[in-house]
Amino acid sequence: MAQRLGKYTLLLPTKPVISGYAAVGGKKEGEGPLADKFDFVYEDSAAGEKTWEKAESTIHGDAVRRAISKAGVTEEQVSVIFAGDLLNQCIGTTFGIRESGIPFAGVYGACSTMALSMALAAASVDGAIAEIAVASTSSHFCSAEKQFRMPLEYGGQRTPTAQWTATAAGATVIEQNLFKNPSKKRLAVVDKIIIGRICDYGIKDANNMGAAMAPAACTTIADFLRDTNTKPEDYDMILTGDLGAVGSKLLCELMIKQENTDISSVHRDCGLILFDIAKQKDVGAGGSGCGCSGAVLCSEILPKIENGDLRRVLFVGTGALMSSVSSLQNESIPAIAHGVLLEGGDVNE
Amino acid sequence: MAQRLGKYTLLLPTKPVISGYAAVGGKKEGEGPLADKFDFVYEDSAAGEKTWEKAESTIHGDAVRRAISKAGVTEEQVSVIFAGDLLNQCIGTTFGIRESGIPFAGVYGACSTMALSMALAAASVDGAIAEIAVASTSSHFCSAEKQFRMPLEYGGQRTPTAQWTATAAGATVIEQNLFKNPSKKRLAVVDKIIIGRICDYGIKDANNMGAAMAPAACTTIADFLRDTNTKPEDYDMILTGDLGAVGSKLLCELMIKQENTDISSVHRDCGLILFDIAKQKDVGAGGSGCGCSGAVLCSEILPKIENGDLRRVLFVGTGALMSSVSSLQNESIPAIAHGVLLEGGDVNE
Repeated sequence: MAQRLGKYTLLLPTKPVISGYAAVGGKKEGEGPLADKFDFVYEDSAAGEKTWEKAESTIHGDAVRRAISKAGVTEEQVSVIFAGDLLNQCIGTTFGIRESGIPFAGVYGACSTMALSMALAAASVDGAIAEIAVASTSSHFCSAEKQFRMPLEYGGQRTPTAQWTATAAGATVIEQNLFKNPSKKRLAVVDKIIIGRICDYGIKDANNMGAAMAPAACTTIADFLRDTNTKPEDYDMILTGDLGAVGSKLLCELMIKQENTDISSVHRDCGLILFDIAKQKDVGAGGSGCGCSGAVLCSEILPKIENGDLRRVLFVGTGALMSSVSSLQNESIPAIAHGVLLEGGDVNE
Repeated sequence: MAQRLGKYTLLLPTKPVISGYAAVGGKKEGEGPLADKFDFVYEDSAAGEKTWEKAESTIHGDAVRRAISKAGVTEEQVSVIFAGDLLNQCIGTTFGIRESGIPFAGVYGACSTMALSMALAAASVDGAIAEIAVASTSSHFCSAEKQFRMPLEYGGQRTPTAQWTATAAGATVIEQNLFKNPSKKRLAVVDKIIIGRICDYGIKDANNMGAAMAPAACTTIADFLRDTNTKPEDYDMILTGDLGAVGSKLLCELMIKQENTDISSVHRDCGLILFDIAKQKDVGAGGSGCGCSGAVLCSEILPKIENGDLRRVLFVGTGALMSSVSSLQNESIPAIAHGVLLEGGDVNE
């Protein structure tokens, strides 16, 4: 049963295990540094569908099915799926998993959804609410641009701080430890979770999400380090979701200024792992969107935890909780960051 | 720790207690049958704000603060809030609770949000993931009409099957049993929960949500009765969220046809409790929206459980998981229903 550490962090003593995961990406994502690491790259951004929204649903469902298959379980065996996305009313998710028959707990955390869904899935497994839980998310560049900014056909210019919404989906299967994997293979486990608090520093520039989200990441990382009485050096990586180049710089500065803590040596950001911003110029300050951190985690990070290259990764998903309506109404951008501590573990040891 | 009953239902052995709750409503809701039962009625539908979206955030935050206060706790003491709403990117929630500082797990279940958030909050308390959890939701007639149908100024006609989105919010505080309430007052407890599965019967009429959602309610109720080996007569009430007159009739018919089970004697629907559809003609087939079931539960049902008028209420929130974009793309309306079994209990007994 979960144990609270400090004020915000929860230790999951049963160490729920990530028994399967999958990442799929679009064409541009397949041209980036992770090209060879995705389970599937959709050369056709429409994924064979007639609309961008249906394409997002298709890649979301694909990632979920692949993760379940790789975990060696069936949809029928999954107790619950925690999933969400950025589209209005989360249709990327609902239409993507509609046929699965899996009990569905919809979550909304904007681009922090992968961390939120994994935190809730792991906590549910730890608390015997679920035997096998799935956590998943998706985003699509074209559906996001159309919804949040301009239809692509408009040909609007992008600001230098703008990020590129990933066309990608990621899914993990999280289940109770000790009852499978007799081979004692090393797998990633979820050791701790932290549910974030909303931070709003008054940023109103919807083309500078990194700046809006950096304070939330700072708050959650600082809370976690305080609660666990640990330092950045205790982690192989502190991995944020999609702060991009601008937000990542701000986060490191904020951590020094507000917390007197230098995380720069271990900090990485999924938005800067998914794309090579020096080579892929049009992605601006880096990748973003729910699918960015979802796909990076499930293609680049989890394999490295399994093979021992990484031992302890604090994954902190970051989300901007605005809508285009709230921005038009001159509201600032509240942000949030949720965290999961991932560790390598010999299951059944 | 939660115990699974059958395939979908979870028993929460610690019986998390609903230590506080609050409901606020708008003018029309304050003219209905529950007029005297709300904690506050906003005579001004704009709640003093300049936009309908900000009004919804305001009433959402108000319900949360009132529930926390009535539970005799502080925002600082709340471990987590599970909350969501129907607005794009859930801004009714995020801007409503932005200042609270409470760790925030956003959920999305469309109009089933009250049941989903309560199920997750109760399960979290049972699994020691939270000591004190809040579950809340909201909706606003004007923000919903503007987003899903037409701006009010358009003056569009409504079909007879259309329902009236409630301007209302509901919030509950759920906490661990046995550690407070030394007076042994009778309070409502959450005994069991069930997370629903998506059902899609191919309904495409966005003005007939009741018909789209009835199959989901039928599935969840049937799953629950099967898992717990109980009959409708074992409950004082099986309370659906917002099926309205059309969907309620369909639900009872489906239960007989598919499950050979007659629930009509104990079935009630929040959409038909919130409004008197015979007197309040313009509400059409009844109330709807996240706030409908949230406010009815927190004004009419929970007090009756506390005073012993109701002993066992299976509350089944119903949600339609479409967006206006998916409907324009000729998609059908997937629906879901989540359930919580509420019982009266002498706490500390």
